[in-house]
This record gives sequence, C-alpha cells and structure tokens, in this order.
Amino acid sequence: MSQNIYDNQAFFDGYAQLPRSQFGLDGAPEWASIQAMLPDLADKRVIDLGCGYGWFCRSARAAGAAEVIGVDLSEKMLARARELTDDPGISYRLGDLEQLALPSQAFDLVYSSLTLHYLPDLAPLLTAIHQALQPGGWLVLTTEHPIYTCPVRQGWFTDSEGQRSWAVNNYHNEGQRLSNWLADGVLKYHRTLGTTLNALMAAGFALRHVDEWGPSVEQIAATPALAEEVERPMMVLVSAQR
Amino acid sequence: MSQNIYDNQAFFDGYAQLPRSQFGLDGAPEWASIQAMLPDLADKRVIDLGCGYGWFCRSARAAGAAEVIGVDLSEKMLARARELTDDPGISYRLGDLEQLALPSQAFDLVYSSLTLHYLPDLAPLLTAIHQALQPGGWLVLTTEHPIYTCPVRQGWFTDSEGQRSWAVNNYHNEGQRLSNWLADGVLKYHRTLGTTLNALMAAGFALRHVDEWGPSVEQIAATPALAEEVERPMMVLVSAQR
Repeated sequence: MSQNIYDNQAFFDGYAQLPRSQFGLDGAPEWASIQAMLPDLADKRVIDLGCGYGWFCRSARAAGAAEVIGVDLSEKMLARARELTDDPGISYRLGDLEQLALPSQAFDLVYSSLTLHYLPDLAPLLTAIHQALQPGGWLVLTTEHPIYTCPVRQGWFTDSEGQRSWAVNNYHNEGQRLSNWLADGVLKYHRTLGTTLNALMAAGFALRHVDEWGPSVEQIAATPALAEEVERPMMVLVSAQR
Repeated sequence: MSQNIYDNQAFFDGYAQLPRSQFGLDGAPEWASIQAMLPDLADKRVIDLGCGYGWFCRSARAAGAAEVIGVDLSEKMLARARELTDDPGISYRLGDLEQLALPSQAFDLVYSSLTLHYLPDLAPLLTAIHQALQPGGWLVLTTEHPIYTCPVRQGWFTDSEGQRSWAVNNYHNEGQRLSNWLADGVLKYHRTLGTTLNALMAAGFALRHVDEWGPSVEQIAATPALAEEVERPMMVLVSAQR
C-alpha cells in the first residue's frame, strides 16, 4: 500500500494551510493552464484520482459533468471533501492508486493532480485508467516535475553574481526521494519526464499537450514568490487521449 | 539565415577533434539509443537535416536505405562529407533549415541530430518535414536538452558535501543563449521540452518515444567522463510519426 502521508496529522494540518487548500482551484496557480487542457465537461463522467478536499470534483459538476467520483487514500481528506458538498452527483471513495480497479469504458475524463509522484510505478495505474476510458476519452494529469524531484536534497543556491539556481543532480537515478514538505520523511518517487511520457504511450495513450508549468507576468506581480517558478519548473501538466 | 558557426575555422577545427567526428556514430554515446528508435531502413528514402560529415547518411545506406540525402548549412561540412563517400545513393545539398522546402511525401524517415537547437523557431521546419513524410513516416531527432541549455551561464557547482549539481535557472525564459563551445559566441536557442513536444504535435506528429539520454553503467566504466550525464541530461531524443 502507498505511503499515506495525508493521514499524518502534522501533514494534514500543514496541507490545510496551503492556498490551494484554503482557496481551492483559484489558489493553485496552475489551474488556468489545466483548464485550457480539459475537454468540455457537459454531461461527462469524470473521476479524480487523488481528489483531496474535492475541489476539482465540485468544479467539474459546476462545469456540467453528469457524474463525478473522487478517489483518495486518505480518510481525513475524504471526510473533509464530504463535508463540503451534498451534491448527489459526486461520490467519494477510499482507494489506493497502486492497486486501483476501474470499470471498463466508464469515464470520459480521468483527472489526477499532484498525486502520481507518490507512486513507485505508473504502468499498472495507467493501464487501469486506459481501459476505464471511453475511446477518445481524456486523461489530464499534473505531477511534480523531475527537475524539482531529482536532487537528493532539494534546494537553491546563489552564485557570486547573485544568480539563483536550482541544484539539479541524480536526474537519471530514478526512484525514492525523501522530502520534508509539511512533515518529515515524505516519500516520493522521481522519474524522468521521458519515463512518464513513455509510460503513457506504452499504455496506449496519444499525447496531446505537455506543459511544464510556469507563471505569467501577471501572476508574478500578484504573488512575487512565484518568480522562482521561472527559474525551474516545479510541476508538469500532461493531457492524453485514449 | 541561421548562424553558420560550422564554417568558422576555429569551430570546424575543434569539431573535427570530437570523438563523434573522428569515430562517427560509434563515437556518439547516444547512438545505440537512437538506433533503438529508428524504423527498419531497408529500401527507405531518408533525409538527414544537419548531416555534418555524413556519418548517418552512410550508416543509413549500409542499413539498406534506397536513397539518402544529407542537408547542411556548412560548405566545409559538406565538402568533408563528399570526400568520405562515392556512393551514388547518397547526395549532399547545401540548405538552411530555417527556410527549407521539401517535396511532398518524398521520405520515409527524416533524421536530425543535435541541430534543432540552432533554430529560433521549430514550427516552419516541422511543418515542412511533416508534409515531406509519407503517412506513417518517421521523424527521429536529437537536440540539446533544456536542462542543459537553460542557464544564462552553463556550469556545475559542488556543495559542501561534495555533491556536484548542474545550475538550472531561467528555464522558462526561452530564446537565445550564447555559449563558448569550441568557439566564442556560439548562438543557440533554449526551448522547454514542452515547447518542442507541443510543436511536434501541433505540426501533426504523433509522439512515439522521448529519451532524455543518459549513459549505461558499461559506458561510464569505459568513459568515466560520461558520469556527469547521470546528474543531468545533455540531450533529448524524440521519435514521432506522421
């Protein structure tokens, strides 16, 4: 079973303080870029893998989706998600993405945001997702960027001329990385971008768009801390079709 | 017209000393990975964009290609390529990839190795390549990796614990980069990997494989200097089909 850091109280409490937790999708700077990659959701069947508080599930229903399922490994996350809606078109289920079984051709969109870097191997899940999509159905995912995940110890350094750089090392040494994001010892998996894209293609997907997300000038003006996302990408957004 | 650094005598002389110049494809550590991405070349029509000394053109003929064309911007490179073969199935042409016109559906494989990072914009060339391929035909390309090209000044640094890292900055600031590789003031263009992949898809290509090349254990044992390619990729190999 996957590490379930979200049920760690310190992590859960820290997560609750993030802008994307407090303000939902509008607190996630990459949301406009994700929206540009989503298909029209009217009357669609949607599943969100790693749904957290359910912000995307509620958004999909607001955009006209017929039925939305949110799956998460964390009971705490699902409890909060259930508190936030009484919409009968949304249902939440406990599930481990490492061993997820999905019905055949049951969805038009599979969505997964900042979750796949917790999985040691993408192939089983991508195979499950592919068979669960209608032909022509979409997978839209975001995951931590390998430039961000690769270093054995993540961090910036500043050279003698004041240029800030992200220290990239061990890019081709894929596998476990321990970070101390919100709590100590958070286990994630580093994969090259090629590995992720090739896994999608091997599972039968046609790639449609790859966005190594960076902030706009307007976003940096509003939130100066985002400027560091120009120096190196922290996440990558991918859309693909069955 | 593109910068033609290869006709600079200092650059040309330096280039002539590289293992990949002296020993051809066997001197290029990524060659085995490229071969794994190539289609069967028997009886195929092939064009190499940025052919240099013509190593790939001769290899394609040896692999059974019916006809091979090599295109390069450098008269010096083409003169050397012509010295190295009298095969009537290979022809060499002077051409600028920034304004290349190609006949319709005339090729089964378009190949381009470590050339596209000299171009300010990929879209016109990719459109020209797409229409020049047979349906089902292949484009196999290699280009400098954006992790390698992004910094305003390329280089390594070593932290207090001896970990060597590549300094990544300005990843999302696409455009010109000046390097001093073999000669001063070599002009290249930095693009994110997403930009390159999206340009391929926008031109009509289906992506087939993305390899951010890294060395094998055996290659590092034979050539210890390759170990740094584990820390950060220097090039990316992409195959795509019309």
